[in-house]
Amino acid sequence: MEQKKLLLLSTGGTIASVVSESGLVPGESGEQLIQMMGSLPYQIEVQDILNLDSSNIQPEEWKLIAEKIYANRHNYDGIVVSHGTDTMAYTASMMTFMLQGIEIPVVFTGSQVPMNVALSDAPDNLKLAFVAAARLEPDIYLAFDGKVMRGCRSVKVRTTAFNAFESVNVPVVAEVTSDGFEIKNKRPRPQATACVLNTNIDTNVSLVKLFPGFDPKLLQAMVDNGCHGIVIEAYGLGGMTFIRRNVAAAIGDLIRQGIPVIAASQCLYERSDLTRYEVGRQALLEGAISARDMTSESAITKLMVGLGQGMDVDGITAFFNTDIAGEVTIN
Amino acid sequence: MEQKKLLLLSTGGTIASVVSESGLVPGESGEQLIQMMGSLPYQIEVQDILNLDSSNIQPEEWKLIAEKIYANRHNYDGIVVSHGTDTMAYTASMMTFMLQGIEIPVVFTGSQVPMNVALSDAPDNLKLAFVAAARLEPDIYLAFDGKVMRGCRSVKVRTTAFNAFESVNVPVVAEVTSDGFEIKNKRPRPQATACVLNTNIDTNVSLVKLFPGFDPKLLQAMVDNGCHGIVIEAYGLGGMTFIRRNVAAAIGDLIRQGIPVIAASQCLYERSDLTRYEVGRQALLEGAISARDMTSESAITKLMVGLGQGMDVDGITAFFNTDIAGEVTIN
Repeated sequence: MEQKKLLLLSTGGTIASVVSESGLVPGESGEQLIQMMGSLPYQIEVQDILNLDSSNIQPEEWKLIAEKIYANRHNYDGIVVSHGTDTMAYTASMMTFMLQGIEIPVVFTGSQVPMNVALSDAPDNLKLAFVAAARLEPDIYLAFDGKVMRGCRSVKVRTTAFNAFESVNVPVVAEVTSDGFEIKNKRPRPQATACVLNTNIDTNVSLVKLFPGFDPKLLQAMVDNGCHGIVIEAYGLGGMTFIRRNVAAAIGDLIRQGIPVIAASQCLYERSDLTRYEVGRQALLEGAISARDMTSESAITKLMVGLGQGMDVDGITAFFNTDIAGEVTIN
Repeated sequence: MEQKKLLLLSTGGTIASVVSESGLVPGESGEQLIQMMGSLPYQIEVQDILNLDSSNIQPEEWKLIAEKIYANRHNYDGIVVSHGTDTMAYTASMMTFMLQGIEIPVVFTGSQVPMNVALSDAPDNLKLAFVAAARLEPDIYLAFDGKVMRGCRSVKVRTTAFNAFESVNVPVVAEVTSDGFEIKNKRPRPQATACVLNTNIDTNVSLVKLFPGFDPKLLQAMVDNGCHGIVIEAYGLGGMTFIRRNVAAAIGDLIRQGIPVIAASQCLYERSDLTRYEVGRQALLEGAISARDMTSESAITKLMVGLGQGMDVDGITAFFNTDIAGEVTIN
């Protein structure tokens, strides 16, 4: 069997970090990462495209990463993107939307400890990502600590432990066991369509976490300062205050100004359901759009994509009621 | 042995909810909850103090709940507060600060399914709360799904499952096992001091979750609209963007205006540590105050308390570098 041909796109992150006077900063090249990783039975090529801590990876870098994946997708059987962990779930979510119909597996990975440190988690994570890129169906994935999950369902939940990421509300796709690389939950291979690159996004959005005492006039202040859409992490199933500080009514005001408001949950796990309690129905009546079981990372990136395509409130509502790429469960 | 005398303060929530035309709304009295719960070997009295979905429990209700606990603390061996789950972790965190030195155990509980539904989790949770109130050391607790945790360390992480709450970054205090009520992690009993009721809080604060593309000028917009302090859920260990959209510099601007900015992590588990990476040090240099391993619920309520006591930025910094009631690990 011919060796699979894989590409590493390196972007920096802890995995590539070295000690500096101002703390850990990205320093190693992709080629250095591959050398330190150890050997794999693949033909691996490398392109260094960024050298950033992922706290500094932003929409401009998303476009670059998407373009590099798009440009290289016909030349490789799979692509691995090495990336800092801090915003990896955001980037992986956004790539799911920017590269709909991607024809090869694209696997994000990184590490909690730099590659050049003994006992780092980097070699294992990078190896896992390459195996996933060689063996899984086309999609955007995130590989970390022996698990491969869908990019748009992953969340960083631990700041230092090796098991930093969890697959939220859907099972992991594959796992390392004593049998090797075990594919646990194969999605039906999507209909073969050509990948469409879409990097038109509107980043003038905001992500608000409700707390008791939250002053709903801050929502209007955000809009007055240029916000075109807001994701609110509401309570539990999506409940919002409506006595005294009427968040639900403030949402209605925004909706009538053409500003879409997405109601997600500040609970990490399980779905929003605005229909169950009065505190959710009030928000729903005012036009709040439910994020259902999406992660906040997917909700905010999907909102940027919808706004970037010129959708109005009705358009965004329909967009969020549609499963674009596996990011949401529509029952 | 004489029966312990316990008080139930009922505030509404799912546990007391009944079906209405506008969805589930609180309806049952505390007396009804006790009757449906089944029997316990305690002398239990009831006071109905609120009848709200906890999405509507706000600073005004916090003051009322704190005053009721304070007023009744010498008349009972322990107090149980039935409360909606959505904001229970916020209320329990705030009570930890408002009632420092409380002389009896105070245990928050609620349920995911109303008490009047067959197979509800309410009877078990309420019984557990009373046992905890009868047997634990003085402190503020949250009892749910067979586990008792410290109020200021609890977070609601699941929207529908019975195991809705987790004890974040500290082990649970007690657990139900086949041996009954097993106390797993006893804190050394705090020095006996008289409880001080402190309900002076400043709720003009904001809780911001960073995402790639976040426009730092929104921070100034919040201050211009009345915010006196901000908690930022930064990335990972506390990293913030400083290229193009310079969140770290925006924090410096706020600090110089006398606005304290707390850096927490959007990762649910483990601590912030701004010293490790350049992206954290930049924020630290600008004066950001680390929330260390606190929950966001504890960080935002502690900020309200500090501001309510008239603390300036230096005062808030010292306050957050101090373990007031077990809410933070200072190493």
